[in-house]
Amino acid sequence: MISKFLFQLIILLFYISSNVNALWPLPQYWVKGSKTLSISPHFSLKQTSETDSILNAKTKEILESAKNRLLNFLTSEKYVSPNVKSIVPKTIDESNTLGCLTISITTNASELDLGIDESYELIIPESQNDDDPLTASLKAETVFGVLHGLNTFSQLLYYNNSKLLLPFVPHNIKDFPRFSHRGLLLDTARNYFPVKDILTTLDIMSWNKFNVFHWHIVDATSWPVVSEVYPDLSNKGAYDPEYMVYTKKDIKKVIDYAKLRGIRIIPEFDMPGHTHSVAESMPEIMSCINKQPIWTNYAVEPPSGQLNIALPKTYEFIHNLIPELTSYFTDKYYHAGGDEVNINCWNTTPSIIEYLSQNPNSSVETLLAKFINETHEIVRKSKKTPITWQEMIVNHNLPLMKDIVVQVWTTKDIVKEVVSKGYRVIVGSSDFWYLDCGHGAWVGNDINGTSWCDPYKTWQKIYSYNPFDGLTDEEAKLVIGGEILLWTEQADPTNLENFLWPRSSAAAEILWSGPYDTSKKIRTPDKDVLARLTDWRFRMVDRDVKAIPLQPLWCARTGMCDMP
Amino acid sequence: MISKFLFQLIILLFYISSNVNALWPLPQYWVKGSKTLSISPHFSLKQTSETDSILNAKTKEILESAKNRLLNFLTSEKYVSPNVKSIVPKTIDESNTLGCLTISITTNASELDLGIDESYELIIPESQNDDDPLTASLKAETVFGVLHGLNTFSQLLYYNNSKLLLPFVPHNIKDFPRFSHRGLLLDTARNYFPVKDILTTLDIMSWNKFNVFHWHIVDATSWPVVSEVYPDLSNKGAYDPEYMVYTKKDIKKVIDYAKLRGIRIIPEFDMPGHTHSVAESMPEIMSCINKQPIWTNYAVEPPSGQLNIALPKTYEFIHNLIPELTSYFTDKYYHAGGDEVNINCWNTTPSIIEYLSQNPNSSVETLLAKFINETHEIVRKSKKTPITWQEMIVNHNLPLMKDIVVQVWTTKDIVKEVVSKGYRVIVGSSDFWYLDCGHGAWVGNDINGTSWCDPYKTWQKIYSYNPFDGLTDEEAKLVIGGEILLWTEQADPTNLENFLWPRSSAAAEILWSGPYDTSKKIRTPDKDVLARLTDWRFRMVDRDVKAIPLQPLWCARTGMCDMP
Repeated sequence: MISKFLFQLIILLFYISSNVNALWPLPQYWVKGSKTLSISPHFSLKQTSETDSILNAKTKEILESAKNRLLNFLTSEKYVSPNVKSIVPKTIDESNTLGCLTISITTNASELDLGIDESYELIIPESQNDDDPLTASLKAETVFGVLHGLNTFSQLLYYNNSKLLLPFVPHNIKDFPRFSHRGLLLDTARNYFPVKDILTTLDIMSWNKFNVFHWHIVDATSWPVVSEVYPDLSNKGAYDPEYMVYTKKDIKKVIDYAKLRGIRIIPEFDMPGHTHSVAESMPEIMSCINKQPIWTNYAVEPPSGQLNIALPKTYEFIHNLIPELTSYFTDKYYHAGGDEVNINCWNTTPSIIEYLSQNPNSSVETLLAKFINETHEIVRKSKKTPITWQEMIVNHNLPLMKDIVVQVWTTKDIVKEVVSKGYRVIVGSSDFWYLDCGHGAWVGNDINGTSWCDPYKTWQKIYSYNPFDGLTDEEAKLVIGGEILLWTEQADPTNLENFLWPRSSAAAEILWSGPYDTSKKIRTPDKDVLARLTDWRFRMVDRDVKAIPLQPLWCARTGMCDMP
Repeated sequence: MISKFLFQLIILLFYISSNVNALWPLPQYWVKGSKTLSISPHFSLKQTSETDSILNAKTKEILESAKNRLLNFLTSEKYVSPNVKSIVPKTIDESNTLGCLTISITTNASELDLGIDESYELIIPESQNDDDPLTASLKAETVFGVLHGLNTFSQLLYYNNSKLLLPFVPHNIKDFPRFSHRGLLLDTARNYFPVKDILTTLDIMSWNKFNVFHWHIVDATSWPVVSEVYPDLSNKGAYDPEYMVYTKKDIKKVIDYAKLRGIRIIPEFDMPGHTHSVAESMPEIMSCINKQPIWTNYAVEPPSGQLNIALPKTYEFIHNLIPELTSYFTDKYYHAGGDEVNINCWNTTPSIIEYLSQNPNSSVETLLAKFINETHEIVRKSKKTPITWQEMIVNHNLPLMKDIVVQVWTTKDIVKEVVSKGYRVIVGSSDFWYLDCGHGAWVGNDINGTSWCDPYKTWQKIYSYNPFDGLTDEEAKLVIGGEILLWTEQADPTNLENFLWPRSSAAAEILWSGPYDTSKKIRTPDKDVLARLTDWRFRMVDRDVKAIPLQPLWCARTGMCDMP
């Protein structure tokens, strides 16, 4: 009987200690109280008249769209936390209802560029002096800060006994991002994702305060983008020329939808490697097309195929195509690829062998440098900044201009090498942030095969990633942000949300406000972090996201499932 | 240009070689032709008059339900294979339409017991002599054979150009199961699954010719079963006493639904270990309740807690409860648990220490033997046969009667040990058939933790499992079948189907007809198996199953993604 008593005491102590509601990602500064408000049935959401006078049509559209989404949550969301007993008190002062949230914006910035001010301040008082309805305030420099503030506000709400409650008032939140580039990469080429799945992903991203959708839109396996200049790219290279493509109109829809949610769309057209899909329509500009069965000598995965970097026709192709592709997208950055090129592929291409014999001062590496530099020049002419994968800087040591951004997908040593060369970087290590890892070999005949990047990246592992690991403060300034990545050899619409959520949320917090306890250099996914993430996971499920459970519900409720 | 030509030649050769349609699991005998029929808009499905005269109300209900499901597929299923070019010829003889499928059943067996005849013969001719509509025939000993035959028939259909086609006629299929126990275990206690998810799982299981749903219905974390004798078991031990329980009525619904689909429901009430949930209402009959934080000394996972096997009250409990539980279920087998007991838990329980000091001839092991034997006697009195986990026979070497069935979840050596003692076994090794493995540590604070049974079990690994491994022919006769298992620490309704399908299908084929090439002792997940499984996966997706993709679609179409 004593042990049972102790057990209940522990539970009680846990409930008391875990009296946090689950903001995710955690704000940078947050002071809260202990009262609970209910939301008035007449709750209204309005901007100050000063704000109204500042906004233009663009920013007003963004604001109205965000307000509508919050109002939808207020009517549709019936979220009951698995820890509801710990969050919502039994007795609520019925006179305390929140009647209004007032929004102020001080500048009219409408371009969602890298580095835009995304800060906000959210104050929810417990009382006020006049007779007006109790009013909360949300202040931000830009409308994009307001988007984050409204998402934070939505996470403060809990549904209980047919009422929408707002516990732990007063709230005083001052919040801003740790990184200006907070991305999620989705590969829509290995398997195709309909536009609706991308839009849903954008919604969930915005709740998690991600602000970049890195659209890895084409790859060796398929070319779903419809080009007017080269229509056969998708006619022959998409999985289906009609139903499994992204038209210019689709892309615009995605961009517009994302912008209303504070998310930039950065497309990636990976070249010159990973381009077998181009061979379906233009084999004449390709090298080592689909070598079988020993593809291993030509590519990291089938089907092999790279643009033939010695042919004038290939240059004609990129000069015609890339300006069209850049014109489809509005962001000032364009990812030009540069991932995993295979030198043997080119070394064994007859036309390249011939070219090199006629140009003894050339080599495959000088051809590659020429190709990448020319690609980047085309991108710059379209008034955009190129992004490249690390290989071009690290493995091939290409003399690329310093305006570019380098995406590093391997270890901290490589991050250090790239920033020490003076490049800005986006990080996201395959040891921590590759969501595809751990699902075994997808090649057909491999009984005991594991994924190349085993093991599976748990939320704990993702949360323990330090983007600044091993960098000096000066070097750290060149890290503009990070991305969590989903390569889709083993993902398609059937399991997209299971792969992404809530694991991507762990990355979102690292990118937004850093680890829970900012004094800790090594991030610890401790009990409080897990309790908040669990709560956020259940709220996402309530919003119809197929976010996977992290533990048995017993653990989610008690928090008693740690290793000793 | 030559390589492009060769590439297309390889594609062509592949299409020719892969002209299989995707029956899954593969029938034991199947001879097929090369013509394609379309299904007549007036297609009918009827039984012979002899069959009508044999059937009673029960068997008729099963038959009518199966016929309705097939007719539903005929109208709703619009399955287009990703390999449709290889399966459906461009030109179809419009005069060739299948007008009828005639069903004959020769016995009226209505009890779905272990070993019931599930064989069937399905013949689809390409022509016949008379003027009647072209008629296929399905013959079976029992109505349960018919269920399998109709599911096979449904897999022969492909939708193309607004027509439902049946390629590769004539078909001559003679089919029967390799094992009579073909199970899938679902743990509904670590996380709760609503009845509707169980029903959906039963549907998908039936398409895969599984015939046993092993309902691991309670565990340490929760007791969702509503007992009339001990209502507080679920009132206090279920995750929610109202919404997260299985009532007697729910259980009957599941049993009835399963039977119409040829599936037995075998419940498992694991005792004396894994019973912490009982402590929520009856702490007085428990040992080592939820030891924290060092639960590792008391259980394999939190929360710890075992029935106190020294107390008369515990015996009173099982004598009152088990007859009620057995009465809820109709199957002749009842899984009484016996999994992973922790001896230290009992060794450190004061009342057990006291009992042993007063009974010097007793030990924890003799108490355990008494408890298990008494449990099994109660089961036998309810006219059911007990099933036990291997530990009781192997680790504890208990002198249990030989009528029981032993479920082995570890290696082939243990299978051999158990059958050599004369017990019948159900197999399903954690090295091959544990679907939960490979998703990292679910304990909260373990950054680099992996699942205890890493790596993730791919379909290839699952398919390579040999239930008879290391057994003599005589020993093999004691293997009554196998089960694929989903323990749900990291699964709930959000990811159930992703975990189960199509990986469970790989186990289904091993259990139904064995590996593709029966001459091979080691099972090889070769190109043809993958092509069929891929096709079956896409058909399941078409039937709204969230079955995960095994490869990029490019691989699914070309079959060119093997290791060299």
